[in-house]
Amino acid sequence: MDDRIRAHAETLVDWSARIDAGDEVVMRVAEGAHDLAVAVAAELGARGANLLATYGSDEVSRAYLRAHDGDFAPNDAERALYENADVYLSLGGGRNTAATADVPGETRGAFDRARSDAREARMTTDWVSTVHPTRSLAQAAGMSYEAYREFVYDAVLRDWESLAEEMGRLKAVLDDGREVRLVAEGTDITLDIAERTAVNSAASVAYDSHNLPSGEVFTAPAGAEGTVTFDVPITVRGRRLRDARLVFEDGEVVEFDATEGEDALADLLDTDAGAKRLGELGVGMNRGITRPTDNVLFDEKMAGTVHLALGRAYDACLPAGETGNESAVHTDLITRMGEGSRLVVDGETIQRDGVFRWEDGFE
Amino acid sequence: MDDRIRAHAETLVDWSARIDAGDEVVMRVAEGAHDLAVAVAAELGARGANLLATYGSDEVSRAYLRAHDGDFAPNDAERALYENADVYLSLGGGRNTAATADVPGETRGAFDRARSDAREARMTTDWVSTVHPTRSLAQAAGMSYEAYREFVYDAVLRDWESLAEEMGRLKAVLDDGREVRLVAEGTDITLDIAERTAVNSAASVAYDSHNLPSGEVFTAPAGAEGTVTFDVPITVRGRRLRDARLVFEDGEVVEFDATEGEDALADLLDTDAGAKRLGELGVGMNRGITRPTDNVLFDEKMAGTVHLALGRAYDACLPAGETGNESAVHTDLITRMGEGSRLVVDGETIQRDGVFRWEDGFE
Repeated sequence: MDDRIRAHAETLVDWSARIDAGDEVVMRVAEGAHDLAVAVAAELGARGANLLATYGSDEVSRAYLRAHDGDFAPNDAERALYENADVYLSLGGGRNTAATADVPGETRGAFDRARSDAREARMTTDWVSTVHPTRSLAQAAGMSYEAYREFVYDAVLRDWESLAEEMGRLKAVLDDGREVRLVAEGTDITLDIAERTAVNSAASVAYDSHNLPSGEVFTAPAGAEGTVTFDVPITVRGRRLRDARLVFEDGEVVEFDATEGEDALADLLDTDAGAKRLGELGVGMNRGITRPTDNVLFDEKMAGTVHLALGRAYDACLPAGETGNESAVHTDLITRMGEGSRLVVDGETIQRDGVFRWEDGFE
Repeated sequence: MDDRIRAHAETLVDWSARIDAGDEVVMRVAEGAHDLAVAVAAELGARGANLLATYGSDEVSRAYLRAHDGDFAPNDAERALYENADVYLSLGGGRNTAATADVPGETRGAFDRARSDAREARMTTDWVSTVHPTRSLAQAAGMSYEAYREFVYDAVLRDWESLAEEMGRLKAVLDDGREVRLVAEGTDITLDIAERTAVNSAASVAYDSHNLPSGEVFTAPAGAEGTVTFDVPITVRGRRLRDARLVFEDGEVVEFDATEGEDALADLLDTDAGAKRLGELGVGMNRGITRPTDNVLFDEKMAGTVHLALGRAYDACLPAGETGNESAVHTDLITRMGEGSRLVVDGETIQRDGVFRWEDGFE
């Protein structure tokens, strides 16, 4: 077995999920994630954890959902499984990113609503999502399989301890700050972050972070004024979106356009009232992620980028009892902080030309 | 998709497991059983059942078991899953029948003992085991993949209703009978079956039958006198056994030999006191199974064969409150009822030359 697969498994089990002897672990295995599953099973065995593996097959889901009449019932067996689990590890990595493209959106929505009890139970575990590099994901990234594997392991096999420490500096600045201003090509926007708490997303449940890789600091802005242009292309509901430009007044989108996928952007903004407002400001700090790969798990953590999410805010960023922006959607839009860019908190420049003030080369 | 896979799934869901709307179904998917899992998922969706798929990977199990120190704990999450399930469908079909050959037997034993709660919970569901034909199983059978697939579907896609009716005739004879005598090349043995009840194993939970394919009628003999030679080769604990010959006195093996694997037979008989006595007499009646394939799920159901199991008896065959033969093993040994053979119950010939008295050609 490739040593990197073993290292990935070890990082997942020890750094991310903090698994101990006796933990009840449910491990979801996507169709293409077999090799990672074998490596994770060995780590779990060595730590004396219990293991039940579930099969997260897109083709099985598609067949089930398309054959069903849409009147779904809650899944008590699945709920009971998660209620009795301490840890849930999701090993993504399918064989076709379009495997469920012909499942009607309303069927998927009805299924998700019926399973909300099981999902809630799952979210109370120490859950972590990761992906095993597959040819399908390489294809979506427009990369060879070998190059994509190198890309994924560069993103996953970081010195997380030291990155967590560096991200802690930005978290401290954002926690103390009242106002963030982002300036870049096509972007000049001011966000109100007073009273909000930033999350140091260091790829570990010990940091309230549930993705491997992670490597971002994020908070939930309360207001927004100005213009932002997102120059990293993304896929929204199967449609490509390029150079989306949003103009905010009083926290709400009042004008928008895009060089590709403007219809998709219009549909997204039209979902509900909260879809026109921001739920998240995130700063990508994972230097292993050097290019977009059409996969938000990676793209939003890319060093030298900032993302804003339309829609729902995370509770962890809000003062106790406050609900923040509510919406059925949470869609991350990403912009590069290249030459000429600035990230300014309460008038003080924290990052210039993509370089933080604590880094070499900051001027 | 091959129509036979759909037909297999439909037989499993409707005939074998009798699945209704709202049933909580747990489906175990072996590494090579993906295509059957997709077909079964479609049938479950169409019937409005709930579905959770588990990943029954031999390579994941091997990695976990070999890394573990052997001090296994009960798996509460798995137990809770089965306690909340109505049906358990095991879709076998791996990619290497020797995938766990290097897991020490004592590790496997300790693991099985620690998981007995979960297994008990699983056995209280309407469980059914079947296999998807894989190249690995074809190899074990010494057959091409195409030929093996035809073999499996001939065994699985029977007219089960009519076979159940035919097997009902033999069950009635055995239920009424006190003594069975088997005569064949190298075999003349008399078995005491008074007070015992036969199971009409018609591949459906409605018949207390949990294998697809099935197609056997079996009971639990109380005593045995005489000699039996098993001319269908089988694999016992990884070792080949050919032409095993057993001599019984007072129900116990007093003499034995074999042309191959005599050591394996000696080890088996030595397991415990019950391993030297019989737990089962079964009569194969599945005419779709025309040759042995080194897989007991199929071999013991082959039409024109009879099998005797050393070891544990099934409760279903015993008078209420009686325990029958007890043992840690249950190993089926198979003999062909060819030309010159007779199966006689209380002096009346029920089968001659492999032909039942209700069939054309019985003389």
